[in-house]
Amino acid sequence: MVEFKIDPKKTALLVIDMTNEFIKEGAPLEVPQGRKMIPKLKKVIEVCRSRNIPVIYTVHVHRKDGVDMGLMKELWEPIRMGLVHVPGSEGVKIYEEISPKDGDIIIEKHRYSAFYGTDLDIILRNLNIDTLIITGVVTNFCCESTARDAMFRDYKVIFLSDCNAAFDMPDLGFGAVSYEEVQKVVCSTIAMGFGEVMSSEILLMRLSQEEEA
Amino acid sequence: MVEFKIDPKKTALLVIDMTNEFIKEGAPLEVPQGRKMIPKLKKVIEVCRSRNIPVIYTVHVHRKDGVDMGLMKELWEPIRMGLVHVPGSEGVKIYEEISPKDGDIIIEKHRYSAFYGTDLDIILRNLNIDTLIITGVVTNFCCESTARDAMFRDYKVIFLSDCNAAFDMPDLGFGAVSYEEVQKVVCSTIAMGFGEVMSSEILLMRLSQEEEA
Repeated sequence: MVEFKIDPKKTALLVIDMTNEFIKEGAPLEVPQGRKMIPKLKKVIEVCRSRNIPVIYTVHVHRKDGVDMGLMKELWEPIRMGLVHVPGSEGVKIYEEISPKDGDIIIEKHRYSAFYGTDLDIILRNLNIDTLIITGVVTNFCCESTARDAMFRDYKVIFLSDCNAAFDMPDLGFGAVSYEEVQKVVCSTIAMGFGEVMSSEILLMRLSQEEEA
Repeated sequence: MVEFKIDPKKTALLVIDMTNEFIKEGAPLEVPQGRKMIPKLKKVIEVCRSRNIPVIYTVHVHRKDGVDMGLMKELWEPIRMGLVHVPGSEGVKIYEEISPKDGDIIIEKHRYSAFYGTDLDIILRNLNIDTLIITGVVTNFCCESTARDAMFRDYKVIFLSDCNAAFDMPDLGFGAVSYEEVQKVVCSTIAMGFGEVMSSEILLMRLSQEEEA
């Protein structure tokens, strides 16, 4: 297992898809665990802002005419029906409790990965970032895809075990999968081959040690 | 769950990293389950060849001077030590039982994904491919990363549940993970949001139905 040097001057925080349509109670893509982790995520966001660590939110949207959907619309009925990921809708607003502040960055994305077909890599290079703290929903979709893509580009991935949330998956031919099982396998895979996985508490400790050093 | 139309004229087979250093008994990156699946994989390869479905093998290599390693060398001790992924070595040869034949394609890659920093996408476009059958090792590393990247590019992903193999992971802070647990979570995630997951038997049936149609 790797242990990276975290230099706050070269670190950014990614907050993935914490929009109403994933987080609000009863939302079409609801991730109940995503709502439960908000107090911890909020603290991480606030500490990052106070340390001048850029806070980058992603929002998943598709054009109303569907020209950017590709196979996303085959895989997700609510996308095909235009019920989610609609630009300008309430659904794609960041959940109010952790809404962006002046100086934060918002990126629109169209696939699970925040790198694919977006300006994220351009922005990170311009900000001289080499370390990416990854948080948000859904652990095994957008968060994991983004962690993988970050590692390919040689960003040091810090994946927060308690600030990434998954949902239960039904039996799709391999048995029903609980969100705990998802979290266990994804965190282990990332810790083994993609970066560091830690709790938000450990991250905040590492950042304050860095300050003293 | 999606069910794609599989057109053999627009389909390619990917055989990921089935090299000696992953497959041979006692190899440095041994995946015992990868050896066990060879009879099934061999059959898929042979049927694809007989149907003129391009067979594309990937091999993971790094330059001896390490300039293409990036964080791979921080994450994997055998890579840092130059013990694996060495161009021209016995380790990076495809395991003899399923070695490439004339007309097959071999791609060298340097990250888990067979798309990242390679000519795979160029080749698939030139061959007019829209469907990618994914097989090989390791399920939750190179195979899953390649499946994710294929879906972002709108290739129809066919992920074979019995021709992708994982290894057990030790306890990296989240409990030990068996290869069965990996397989369950990865296959479920892909079936939910990245493509179709099926056994090799079902694939061969679907391909022969296509022939009759």
